Amino acid sequence: MSSVAAFQDLTDNLPDWVEAYRAYAAEGRVATYIPELAHAPQQALGITLHHKSGAVISAGDAGMPFTLQSISKVFTLLLALMDRGEKAVFEKVGMEPTGDVFNSMLKLELVQPGKPFNPLINAGAIVISSLIRGDSPEHKAERIVRFIRELAGDEGPSINEHVYRSEAETANRNRSLAYFLKDNKVLDEEVEPTLDVYFRQCAIEVTCAQVARMGLVLANDGADPFTGRELIPKRYVRIAKSFMVTCGMYNASGEFAIQVGIPAKSGVAGGILALVPGELGIGIIGPALNDKGNSTAGVHLLRLLSERYDWSMF
Amino acid sequence: MSSVAAFQDLTDNLPDWVEAYRAYAAEGRVATYIPELAHAPQQALGITLHHKSGAVISAGDAGMPFTLQSISKVFTLLLALMDRGEKAVFEKVGMEPTGDVFNSMLKLELVQPGKPFNPLINAGAIVISSLIRGDSPEHKAERIVRFIRELAGDEGPSINEHVYRSEAETANRNRSLAYFLKDNKVLDEEVEPTLDVYFRQCAIEVTCAQVARMGLVLANDGADPFTGRELIPKRYVRIAKSFMVTCGMYNASGEFAIQVGIPAKSGVAGGILALVPGELGIGIIGPALNDKGNSTAGVHLLRLLSERYDWSMF
Amino acid sequence: MSSVAAFQDLTDNLPDWVEAYRAYAAEGRVATYIPELAHAPQQALGITLHHKSGAVISAGDAGMPFTLQSISKVFTLLLALMDRGEKAVFEKVGMEPTGDVFNSMLKLELVQPGKPFNPLINAGAIVISSLIRGDSPEHKAERIVRFIRELAGDEGPSINEHVYRSEAETANRNRSLAYFLKDNKVLDEEVEPTLDVYFRQCAIEVTCAQVARMGLVLANDGADPFTGRELIPKRYVRIAKSFMVTCGMYNASGEFAIQVGIPAKSGVAGGILALVPGELGIGIIGPALNDKGNSTAGVHLLRLLSERYDWSMF
Amino acid sequence: MSSVAAFQDLTDNLPDWVEAYRAYAAEGRVATYIPELAHAPQQALGITLHHKSGAVISAGDAGMPFTLQSISKVFTLLLALMDRGEKAVFEKVGMEPTGDVFNSMLKLELVQPGKPFNPLINAGAIVISSLIRGDSPEHKAERIVRFIRELAGDEGPSINEHVYRSEAETANRNRSLAYFLKDNKVLDEEVEPTLDVYFRQCAIEVTCAQVARMGLVLANDGADPFTGRELIPKRYVRIAKSFMVTCGMYNASGEFAIQVGIPAKSGVAGGILALVPGELGIGIIGPALNDKGNSTAGVHLLRLLSERYDWSMF
Repeated sequence: MSSVAAFQDLTDNLPDWVEAYRAYAAEGRVATYIPELAHAPQQALGITLHHKSGAVISAGDAGMPFTLQSISKVFTLLLALMDRGEKAVFEKVGMEPTGDVFNSMLKLELVQPGKPFNPLINAGAIVISSLIRGDSPEHKAERIVRFIRELAGDEGPSINEHVYRSEAETANRNRSLAYFLKDNKVLDEEVEPTLDVYFRQCAIEVTCAQVARMGLVLANDGADPFTGRELIPKRYVRIAKSFMVTCGMYNASGEFAIQVGIPAKSGVAGGILALVPGELGIGIIGPALNDKGNSTAGVHLLRLLSERYDWSMF
Repeated sequence: MSSVAAFQDLTDNLPDWVEAYRAYAAEGRVATYIPELAHAPQQALGITLHHKSGAVISAGDAGMPFTLQSISKVFTLLLALMDRGEKAVFEKVGMEPTGDVFNSMLKLELVQPGKPFNPLINAGAIVISSLIRGDSPEHKAERIVRFIRELAGDEGPSINEHVYRSEAETANRNRSLAYFLKDNKVLDEEVEPTLDVYFRQCAIEVTCAQVARMGLVLANDGADPFTGRELIPKRYVRIAKSFMVTCGMYNASGEFAIQVGIPAKSGVAGGILALVPGELGIGIIGPALNDKGNSTAGVHLLRLLSERYDWSMF
Repeated sequence: MSSVAAFQDLTDNLPDWVEAYRAYAAEGRVATYIPELAHAPQQALGITLHHKSGAVISAGDAGMPFTLQSISKVFTLLLALMDRGEKAVFEKVGMEPTGDVFNSMLKLELVQPGKPFNPLINAGAIVISSLIRGDSPEHKAERIVRFIRELAGDEGPSINEHVYRSEAETANRNRSLAYFLKDNKVLDEEVEPTLDVYFRQCAIEVTCAQVARMGLVLANDGADPFTGRELIPKRYVRIAKSFMVTCGMYNASGEFAIQVGIPAKSGVAGGILALVPGELGIGIIGPALNDKGNSTAGVHLLRLLSERYDWSMF
Repeated sequence: MSSVAAFQDLTDNLPDWVEAYRAYAAEGRVATYIPELAHAPQQALGITLHHKSGAVISAGDAGMPFTLQSISKVFTLLLALMDRGEKAVFEKVGMEPTGDVFNSMLKLELVQPGKPFNPLINAGAIVISSLIRGDSPEHKAERIVRFIRELAGDEGPSINEHVYRSEAETANRNRSLAYFLKDNKVLDEEVEPTLDVYFRQCAIEVTCAQVARMGLVLANDGADPFTGRELIPKRYVRIAKSFMVTCGMYNASGEFAIQVGIPAKSGVAGGILALVPGELGIGIIGPALNDKGNSTAGVHLLRLLSERYDWSMF
């Protein structure tokens, strides 16, 4: 199906699909570990697709703001690569997927010398946050926000202060991971300032349209899709896309590769960033999560779209 | 670079590259767990590329026979899918990559109820072998050999009886895994007949040309590249390629996805099956293995080729 | 309380206590992994105490035969020490307790080089069985039976052939452990003959009176309590008693040390061997097991007796 | 050997034995994780034995002050039991030994719901510190110091401020454990104040004579050996002695039970508290540690004494 026909088909059908797929939310549960997430509407489902031609299609609750949470890990990885280079980054984190749950310490303890498996698990992302350049946590977080805004082509993304403060108050597991990394000398920076950056990046609030536009930049190998200007070196985008395929959807990444087959990254607020290389970026919000921590309706919707438009890379 | 130009470039340079890359063998070690593997020449390096146009290029020790070992796991997975269907197969094995070493029992014990993480680790592959249809281990193995021959377009591939017998004699770790799976009721068949199939499939002897032709069928979504006849349903090829990307190179799969970016599967004899989707199949032999169990010279050579011809899917 | 007064108190009260403590069986479950164990009466509870003075007191179902199961591990350890010496035995098994469940492979995999933690977990006991001298599994098992009979002062203990055969047929977990040990070169003998010895020792059928007499020999530092003849060197009895205290009651050994405080070893048939050093041996049968695999009524009864007669070593 | 003869034998020989056993220090290494410990003299070895008769024998560097470190865990356990009762304490920590190293998180993660295995591993001891009554960390630590002084019969024991501050600065692993416990809701108190108590208790400075006197109180079932006044309820002393036997010497506790056979607890400064029930208390200092973290010369010396005077409980 050509892109034009596909976009017409999408225009005709997406609203109905979104309404129908809200039903999947009943299978999942909204994250409750911080109050701000617990208040998200269980039934919400929204999506924006941003094609390289400039065409944008949204449906459902696409306008509902949500926080990036783990989706931010893709962008701090990119920024750390741009700040420090590939060698410095991969001295601190590995490149391998792991079947463990996202916040497990098991692998950290078993695999010497405590180097996180990859930058998309919490331990790896915390190390990555420590590599972002800046004079203070505020400065580092500001640089991350600016980078997100640049990719989103929108000044909208900002830190949700309520969410940030809630994250900081309830993050004992992440503190435990960070002190473990510190003890293993994988984390060079101080724990609390590093976590402060991490909590802020997780609390950046976006909409589906902004996430879709960020995905489009990745689909376009790091170049601004309209000006052609390089926003991210292509090599780093390749690295990010590889990780999104092998580890982007927690310990359901392998199944997602088979069933959907495109680079994607989910967050615990119910957001998903996805992209069809060379074609389009996708932003999804659906707060009800399945047992692997991914938006249940969002994953079902992506599978439908991937099958209908033959998006799989495999 | 167009395919034609690329093939000219390959024709001009491949022999020199292979000679130069033999040096990487010094970094690795030939597998020694069975005598037949230990006798393989450390410096050997051979490659065949088979393009969908029919063009075939070989260099180095491409004519040296070697046993499939873990490369066979891709093909028993495909045959099991064709024999039993997707649902039956994934009731018994998972779809997720794991950062553990290939023969670990750790994850089997920790993740209830003992279901192997994916079909490309030993535990998963043993379960897959039990799903191949046939009246006896010999019959099942014969069906696997016939399937390999059909994909290779060559009656050459046969079980190396010496290797098969050596595998059977030294496979205490695999026996341990199999009895563990049996105890967990993941393995329904008897242990020894199942292992007998598994040892035979590992001992199928091939050449680079045969492996390249097998890869070409996968690159062509399961259709015979010359007659167009469906040898494997496209859906199952997609599943196989997904697993090759997320788990094909043991616990270096993530790094391989970043550095090379094509579906591949390695074996402990030093073989690698790889493919560029829609373009070509690749067979490599290089017995010296790196610390992750992949042909060290083979991986370096694939990285060179992927960078030069921009093969990465990412 | 003097021994004489204690024995009068026991004579007066033990039958009533046993009847009252049968009620605890309702908390537990009879082991079902082999049919012969599953048929054991849930409510059964029997006990024999054998004092060094020669006094013997029994109550409840003390005459009910049961198989030693893991209780046999104490005696094969002793026989292996007598056959091979301390150095040879502890080259193959460790001396440390572990909080893992009895048949875990986790520790074997994590702790190099696969040496079992202690001789009372299954992995350790299998290695110990391989160290018993003898020309065949039958001969080794016969030597174990003779040793048991000598300690029991009774020709009664014999292998229950039904139980032995059931053990052998259903022991996939133990086969898995044994092949793992073989692969790690901790087990030098062949797997199946070693397991054959192990299954036979587990299937030795005894009564409470026989077990109490065996315990009395241990309470008497290895000397026959009536002739004074050394049946087991005192040093080896000390080793056995140490293991019984630190690891005799599976992963409830620590709690048992606090609440009861005497050397003991339980088996999955519901038997318990216990002893008060210098005083008496105890045999108990109570087939209903608690969630740690120990006879639930048996443990409660031992706690009552230990508190009443101040038996704790601590 | 009677106690009187034994004390004469000790008086005659102990100085020579200590001088001879200093040689074992060469096998070990002084702990280096904080500067204060790293400065301890490698060759130092001192011992005091305090008999219930009042006789005290010292030899070697018995006058050298050292910090309790993990030896304090025995006394905070006792104080927590006295402050909160048995039920409240064992809702928060388990009773089982574990073969893991002292600061492992592995078991915490694997065994739901994150309850530490026992009060003598770091995770358990941190929870115990949180149970000590007091208005502030200073107050709690002061109560611990007073308890130690009471048992030592000496106002000498005090917190070494240098060591305390060094502990606090370098304790990332303990912080990681504590936040993990907090996340699992096993630790109810705040992390930093709890750790502050823990660091202070570890830094209490003592001499061999003081530790021997503390051990004598435990050997005397909690009663002041001279006035007979109950300092600790007998039941709690029993609990402490049980833990000392099953888990007092890190993951060499099983071996120590076999080779020495008395309740003991070691610390990373090279101290050992030991006792012969009903007879005497022992304090040892020998800063060079073996690979399990116990004073290497100290353990050898205890083994010599246990064998010579037949101290083993087993």
